[in-house]
Amino acid sequence: MQYGIIMAGGSGTRLWPLSRKDNPKQLLPLVHGRSLLQLGYDRLRGLLPPERIYVCTGADYADSVFANLPELPKENLLGEPMGRDTANAVGFAAAVLHKNDPEAVMAVVTADHVIEPVATFRKSVELAFAVVAEQPGALVTFGIVPTHGHTGLGYIYRGDPLPLSSKQAGAYKVLAFKEKPDQATADRYVESGRYYWNSGMFVWRCETVLRELSQHLPEGYKGLMRISEAWGTPAQAEVLREVYPVLPRISVDYAVMEPVSQGKGKATVVTVEMPVEWLDVGSWPALAETLDLDDHENALDCRVCLLLDSDNNIIVSHDPEHLIATLGLSDMIVVHTKDVTLMCPKRDAQRVKELVGKLKDQFGVRYQ
Amino acid sequence: MQYGIIMAGGSGTRLWPLSRKDNPKQLLPLVHGRSLLQLGYDRLRGLLPPERIYVCTGADYADSVFANLPELPKENLLGEPMGRDTANAVGFAAAVLHKNDPEAVMAVVTADHVIEPVATFRKSVELAFAVVAEQPGALVTFGIVPTHGHTGLGYIYRGDPLPLSSKQAGAYKVLAFKEKPDQATADRYVESGRYYWNSGMFVWRCETVLRELSQHLPEGYKGLMRISEAWGTPAQAEVLREVYPVLPRISVDYAVMEPVSQGKGKATVVTVEMPVEWLDVGSWPALAETLDLDDHENALDCRVCLLLDSDNNIIVSHDPEHLIATLGLSDMIVVHTKDVTLMCPKRDAQRVKELVGKLKDQFGVRYQ
Repeated sequence: MQYGIIMAGGSGTRLWPLSRKDNPKQLLPLVHGRSLLQLGYDRLRGLLPPERIYVCTGADYADSVFANLPELPKENLLGEPMGRDTANAVGFAAAVLHKNDPEAVMAVVTADHVIEPVATFRKSVELAFAVVAEQPGALVTFGIVPTHGHTGLGYIYRGDPLPLSSKQAGAYKVLAFKEKPDQATADRYVESGRYYWNSGMFVWRCETVLRELSQHLPEGYKGLMRISEAWGTPAQAEVLREVYPVLPRISVDYAVMEPVSQGKGKATVVTVEMPVEWLDVGSWPALAETLDLDDHENALDCRVCLLLDSDNNIIVSHDPEHLIATLGLSDMIVVHTKDVTLMCPKRDAQRVKELVGKLKDQFGVRYQ
Repeated sequence: MQYGIIMAGGSGTRLWPLSRKDNPKQLLPLVHGRSLLQLGYDRLRGLLPPERIYVCTGADYADSVFANLPELPKENLLGEPMGRDTANAVGFAAAVLHKNDPEAVMAVVTADHVIEPVATFRKSVELAFAVVAEQPGALVTFGIVPTHGHTGLGYIYRGDPLPLSSKQAGAYKVLAFKEKPDQATADRYVESGRYYWNSGMFVWRCETVLRELSQHLPEGYKGLMRISEAWGTPAQAEVLREVYPVLPRISVDYAVMEPVSQGKGKATVVTVEMPVEWLDVGSWPALAETLDLDDHENALDCRVCLLLDSDNNIIVSHDPEHLIATLGLSDMIVVHTKDVTLMCPKRDAQRVKELVGKLKDQFGVRYQ
């Protein structure tokens, strides 16, 4: 059977102070009133019934997840006691699914991006399912067709098209994964037409990925098997709390995809092209791209505001009583919440994380 | 007898959103926790007992004035039904004082500035009282010794020293009042050593100023006499409400001081030097000069803040729960109140008034 796993971990620190420790970005109604988790769920929901959609995230967020997704079955929340990077999140999900369904095929999707059009996303996932049906040993990674030479992303270097019985186009062998390139290299990648942005989204048989984990990450694999054995028994919670914290912290790209792409494994790495608009909304300027602009190029998600001679700003405030007034303001980010107001120039948007790091020294966990 | 009148009118719009229609700047604890009205009262209190200190301001502010000055006798609040500029405020006070004490001498002082040292202020006021004692027909205007060529102020051009029996220095004939000069002229004024900033503070016999008002502003004078007749009778409030709105709106400088200095009157205009630091705190940058600077030249009157790589800002927030966080912010004004957050570059500080003007279109009286 086919399953979908939404990876909804991460703290979204660069969207502070809206995104908070206890209410992280993927659960906030950031995009036209909907959360990234809701958008991710809707994307899968066109392909799969609710009982085969899972959410993997911090156990602390359980209540918020169910508030976001009332339809999600209680047992489909895979609550991590803490984040241990993607190899374990993916492995945890694979182990749990495989225990109940040894034939399980899982689509691992993220909730960090706005993806349009949704139909194209679904078509790519369906193609990936078709690839795995024909080639059970395939690890499929989705490649986003790049629109520009992004230096903040990893790239997938594709080889020849995969010979599929259906003759469907869009699936390729993977020749190599490339680390974040410099600008010249990134531009060259895009121009060549043979590179994709590495999406961090996958389709594979649970059996296949678990086998590769057992080879490349044997310690972690043992831990996942202990969890899997305890899953659905009274010991589930205790074993999870005991094992999870000591799993080796590593990404699935480093632990599995790269070594396998280099021939160090039994599986084969395949990429399926996903020709979508792929909008990372992990920072204020990125989120602002989902907002309409006013006549002065201001991106406003502001309930009450008065702007005079102010251009190119990002202003976010959801308080219906509080007025945000600006005068002669340009290229700034202003985010107002009940207990915090943040101001910084757009050029410093990526440093919001750093600011949040400083909070602890002065205020402990408050405001985080 | 000698009296002191604190002129505490004006809206302080350039200190919005802290200064509000119902809670204007002179009543706010802006300077080390004290209001400008309190500071002005303290300055006079060293010279005069409470029963001879009066406050002239909008009648609506009565409660706030008594909250600021619990010692002020109830009958010493001269509540204007609305602002009608300084000729009427001053005339109103003179008429009321003169009714009860035909020999009354009044010191008219403002509450718009921080004045240091206070002892020097008091010494100048005492000299002015001495001048009026010797020359009952004198209208004394205080001249602030200028520290630089300010182009936003009027100047007093002084003549020869006044021959006083006490031989006290510091009192001069006035040759002319000068309008706000251009920079070159202002610099020349300061260099000459014979010009003062026009303080808008005065000492005179009530009789003298009323006589000049009767000559130069006969209509207004008639109105003031009607108020004076009704003062202390049951008709007081009604007459005030009826007469005040139709008084001709004009400043005491234009109505009295300038014509008299040009020989068009019976009085003589004298200036008494006031060698004080005279800080107009009518705008955010001006107010910031009363604040201590941190290591990054930020002027902070902020209960909870976290600044990272932020320099030369003015940040005001009195909310003990709300965090103001800035990152890479420079040369900005940030003022946070319960219901408004204002942001503008320092260079636009004088335009805050304009912003407040725009409020009405969008929000009516709310937020004003």
